[in-house]
Amino acid sequence: MISKARLKFIKSLQVKKYRKQEQCFVVEGAKGVQELLGSDMRTILVAATSNFLKDNERKVLRSGAEVLEVKPADLEQAGSYQTNDSALAVAQMRPNQQPDIRPDEFALVLDDIRDPGNLGTIIRTADWYGIRHIIASEETADLYNPKVISATMGSFIRVSVFYTDLAQYLASSSLTTYGAFLDGGNVHSMSFDGGGLIVIGNESAGISPAVTSLIRKRITIPRQGGAESLNASIATAVILDNIARSKTIK
Amino acid sequence: MISKARLKFIKSLQVKKYRKQEQCFVVEGAKGVQELLGSDMRTILVAATSNFLKDNERKVLRSGAEVLEVKPADLEQAGSYQTNDSALAVAQMRPNQQPDIRPDEFALVLDDIRDPGNLGTIIRTADWYGIRHIIASEETADLYNPKVISATMGSFIRVSVFYTDLAQYLASSSLTTYGAFLDGGNVHSMSFDGGGLIVIGNESAGISPAVTSLIRKRITIPRQGGAESLNASIATAVILDNIARSKTIK
Repeated sequence: MISKARLKFIKSLQVKKYRKQEQCFVVEGAKGVQELLGSDMRTILVAATSNFLKDNERKVLRSGAEVLEVKPADLEQAGSYQTNDSALAVAQMRPNQQPDIRPDEFALVLDDIRDPGNLGTIIRTADWYGIRHIIASEETADLYNPKVISATMGSFIRVSVFYTDLAQYLASSSLTTYGAFLDGGNVHSMSFDGGGLIVIGNESAGISPAVTSLIRKRITIPRQGGAESLNASIATAVILDNIARSKTIK
Repeated sequence: MISKARLKFIKSLQVKKYRKQEQCFVVEGAKGVQELLGSDMRTILVAATSNFLKDNERKVLRSGAEVLEVKPADLEQAGSYQTNDSALAVAQMRPNQQPDIRPDEFALVLDDIRDPGNLGTIIRTADWYGIRHIIASEETADLYNPKVISATMGSFIRVSVFYTDLAQYLASSSLTTYGAFLDGGNVHSMSFDGGGLIVIGNESAGISPAVTSLIRKRITIPRQGGAESLNASIATAVILDNIARSKTIK
């Protein structure tokens, strides 16, 4: 069972204000909690079924977290998942720190990605393609929102997200900046030498004017059909796949 | 204002059972309703603000639909959107008909895509890449679910979805079948000559055994990082982009 006080604490972390205050967030489901326990992030509390605790005994013990053995109904009451028959954990946020991006590395820059599902999917996709860092505008969805953490499928462990003023950040960066527009160079024939920053725009407004003026290379994903645009996470994936391809196939 | 009877009818279409019974579905938002009015689908009812009706007067009149001038609050009450300051329409479903796929054309086959957001995004992405037809298992989310229609961003007009028994369909098709697996050929170096069927598996279980046995060419999207898998709509986009590329760049 989860005590009333613990339950109140865990549930409060659904709200950004309390996450910020406590510097904590919630991870739900077996995959996410296992990834968390295997990482260098600090786990504060694990609430899990006896089965999950048996299967992950060493990892749970080594984490030093408070451990509660609970029933699926308790997990569903405490968390945001409709069904959860494994585990839920509370972890400590990472500090919001500017990442060190190597000159031969690509990173993503998110200009107001508002939808938590999109942000989570972008993080998962970035992780697949070996991207280690994301720089996000202050208006981008919160990494620690339960929907974002869930959609990352554990990739929040390996990809860092740094929230900052994008115009300022880009103006002071020496990396090549790429952005997706309707009138850019064909992503299929572009060469992505070295590294750089790939800017992804807001779901409806695209890349903001202040950021647009700082973009050096305009990319376009060629269209064969009738849709007006691509979903932001889809556009990210297509660009990252073309970069991966241009780095391995010459 | 929308009468009580109309309101009840529109709201009932949120439920699959009633959609099936009435053979009708709801389209919400300016973009979706405009696409609908510009298409050959039959529109039965348009509820819209005076601004939307003024801006789209000819299209609305030509549709022959019943027209109701309403306030945003009425649209939000009748539909599933939290905010809607433009329009909502009721349209007639298309018959569930087996499409004619040309031998030089690619189509998608969805093996139990359960998430409405994923299905909608797949339809939108397919439309971008000029895919006209999708064949879906009976367990795939319903095309006419409001969340699916919304995520297509109007592309439900241009892409057909045919629900059927996939194993039976694939066994009787003469087209080359492709499927994404972890041990297939590199999608970056594969040649996609002619046309074919691209099978996309369920979000957690992947492609089912019965369907797997009918796949001729196994594709893999190369991974550089730590994520275990890609979201189904992301994998679809990456494969379609590689097909588009292989057809234009030799």
